Amino acid sequence: MTTILAVDCMGGDHGPRVTLVACRHFLDAHPEAQLLLVGAPAALESFHHPRARVVPASEVVAMDDPVEVALRKKKDSSMRVAIQQVKEGQAQAAVSAGNTGALMALARYVLKTVEGIDRPAIAYGLPNAKGGATTVLDLGANVDCTEQHLLQFAVLGSALASALTENDSPSVGLLNIGEEAIKGSEVIKKAGELLRAAGSAGDLNFYGNVEGNDIFKGTTDIVVCDGFVGNVMLKTSEGLASMIGGFLKEEFTRNPLTKLAALVSLPVLHAFKKRVDHRRYNGAALLGLRGLVFKSHGSADELAFEQALVRAYDAARHNLLDRVQARIAHARPLLAGTTEVPPLPVTTD
Amino acid sequence: MTTILAVDCMGGDHGPRVTLVACRHFLDAHPEAQLLLVGAPAALESFHHPRARVVPASEVVAMDDPVEVALRKKKDSSMRVAIQQVKEGQAQAAVSAGNTGALMALARYVLKTVEGIDRPAIAYGLPNAKGGATTVLDLGANVDCTEQHLLQFAVLGSALASALTENDSPSVGLLNIGEEAIKGSEVIKKAGELLRAAGSAGDLNFYGNVEGNDIFKGTTDIVVCDGFVGNVMLKTSEGLASMIGGFLKEEFTRNPLTKLAALVSLPVLHAFKKRVDHRRYNGAALLGLRGLVFKSHGSADELAFEQALVRAYDAARHNLLDRVQARIAHARPLLAGTTEVPPLPVTTD
Repeated sequence: MTTILAVDCMGGDHGPRVTLVACRHFLDAHPEAQLLLVGAPAALESFHHPRARVVPASEVVAMDDPVEVALRKKKDSSMRVAIQQVKEGQAQAAVSAGNTGALMALARYVLKTVEGIDRPAIAYGLPNAKGGATTVLDLGANVDCTEQHLLQFAVLGSALASALTENDSPSVGLLNIGEEAIKGSEVIKKAGELLRAAGSAGDLNFYGNVEGNDIFKGTTDIVVCDGFVGNVMLKTSEGLASMIGGFLKEEFTRNPLTKLAALVSLPVLHAFKKRVDHRRYNGAALLGLRGLVFKSHGSADELAFEQALVRAYDAARHNLLDRVQARIAHARPLLAGTTEVPPLPVTTD
Repeated sequence: MTTILAVDCMGGDHGPRVTLVACRHFLDAHPEAQLLLVGAPAALESFHHPRARVVPASEVVAMDDPVEVALRKKKDSSMRVAIQQVKEGQAQAAVSAGNTGALMALARYVLKTVEGIDRPAIAYGLPNAKGGATTVLDLGANVDCTEQHLLQFAVLGSALASALTENDSPSVGLLNIGEEAIKGSEVIKKAGELLRAAGSAGDLNFYGNVEGNDIFKGTTDIVVCDGFVGNVMLKTSEGLASMIGGFLKEEFTRNPLTKLAALVSLPVLHAFKKRVDHRRYNGAALLGLRGLVFKSHGSADELAFEQALVRAYDAARHNLLDRVQARIAHARPLLAGTTEVPPLPVTTD
């Protein structure tokens, strides 16, 4: 079956220079995929492929455009037109490296949230020591969360993890500062009760509380937290990985002897680098919308952007949207306690 | 001038087997230091040193003892007696590897908080890419914080950083999910305003908002956050560092060729390991009390526990307590908005 992705080719720090190269690699590796290349025709016309066609869009949302500009001024932006393709059924998922705040706002405006979900969340798979990925959400779309939101994130994350892996019952951990149920803030304690109830009702596979170190240990398949904590956690991890990589490089380039050691160790260092290469994990899912939208890191290079395409493709072809809806339908009695709240600021990267 | 530390020799996962070895190394390296070895005389009597003497305590707070047990039942615990030495002026600081919750509760009960400070905080120096340490607080003593608490943490952290380094005006960052002042929760936004006011008044050197990656970059000397975020951040970092270390080890031990590379690279790998060795950063300060208390990681080995002793020693001899009080006196107009709130749960490690 053909799966079609709508690609915002103009977004991100590098635009078509990076996105088009990634699109070609992606098409070569996925013979059943089709792409809609959204953007300025002049910038995209050089790209020829039997399974790709250009969808024109005259504007571009800049990385520093406020959300209001993306929503109200640039109505023909490549980001918006890409999402529109999903809305109209022309594509099964949209992918953009544009600014997160604008993407979330546009996706929410164009696609709307799924019934039973108040707020979309951003989910991302982080590598873990078990060799798999730990899906963490929310990563910055929702600064203040109620226990109901955390339950919704757990349902959304379970749908995503089951679509991207073979596991129909992925385990969910609630991020807390201690394993004991009595730990944490009031919201976290109430969320724990809700999640336990959802676990008992068979709506999800609730493991219990987890702590920060469990994310990279891979204790659970999914870790649920509010967007403030998730965003700090993600960016701290980026900072630490970069520092450790820098230290390793410094030690191996300290003098001629250590440089010789580096030469001898080259294959090992390459293998190591590949394992911790954040580009291989690029592609965050915007969950809870009536359509699939994936966000690539703004600074993504060809390899990283291709990964985001692959992630969106896998999610679309494994019917992530249906899975989300099925899980929400199943959990409806528990989610019924949900009340609509005003939208909150979204982060940009 | 002689500086005296009271050491809870019974606390931690290993007790006197580790703490006594660390004490000896510490005494050898610090000819002006004296130690009060607090604990069961039978366990400590083998230790002889002209600058150490045993202070008997008949009980031990177990790593899993609830706070209430430490506070109300075990009134002659080594942890409590060590803190008591500080209260009575017998020692300038106490050091324990016992459970964090009990230590914080006892320290608060015995020593009380400094005027102007509602809640003590836990501060820790994390290594940064600049080769220094970023002091982060709170790391888990306070789950929910108001903007006033975050201001208090900034004042406390500034006193600690100035005592442990030569820098009289260490910079303070407010941990947030974006650099812009409009980002973050309501509490964070209000804290930003307070901190800006404190910066303008010359009470502290406020840099502005920082993000997770700035901690390990070393963008500011101090990073302020609530205890939930701080605890998650710290434990996530431990988990990530451990995963990366594990990957590196796996790659270097994969086959005979990679093992040969490891052999050639041994000095480099040792130098690297030393730089990222978390034991070198052991020793968290409990700040905001009328006396100095330092917390070692429960699983600390000899080297790590010695580091905690060194940290406590440096803080004591550079008059951390006076610095705290001077900074609080200076910031009193801003801190005056503070209202007392009920104590919150503390974490244990």
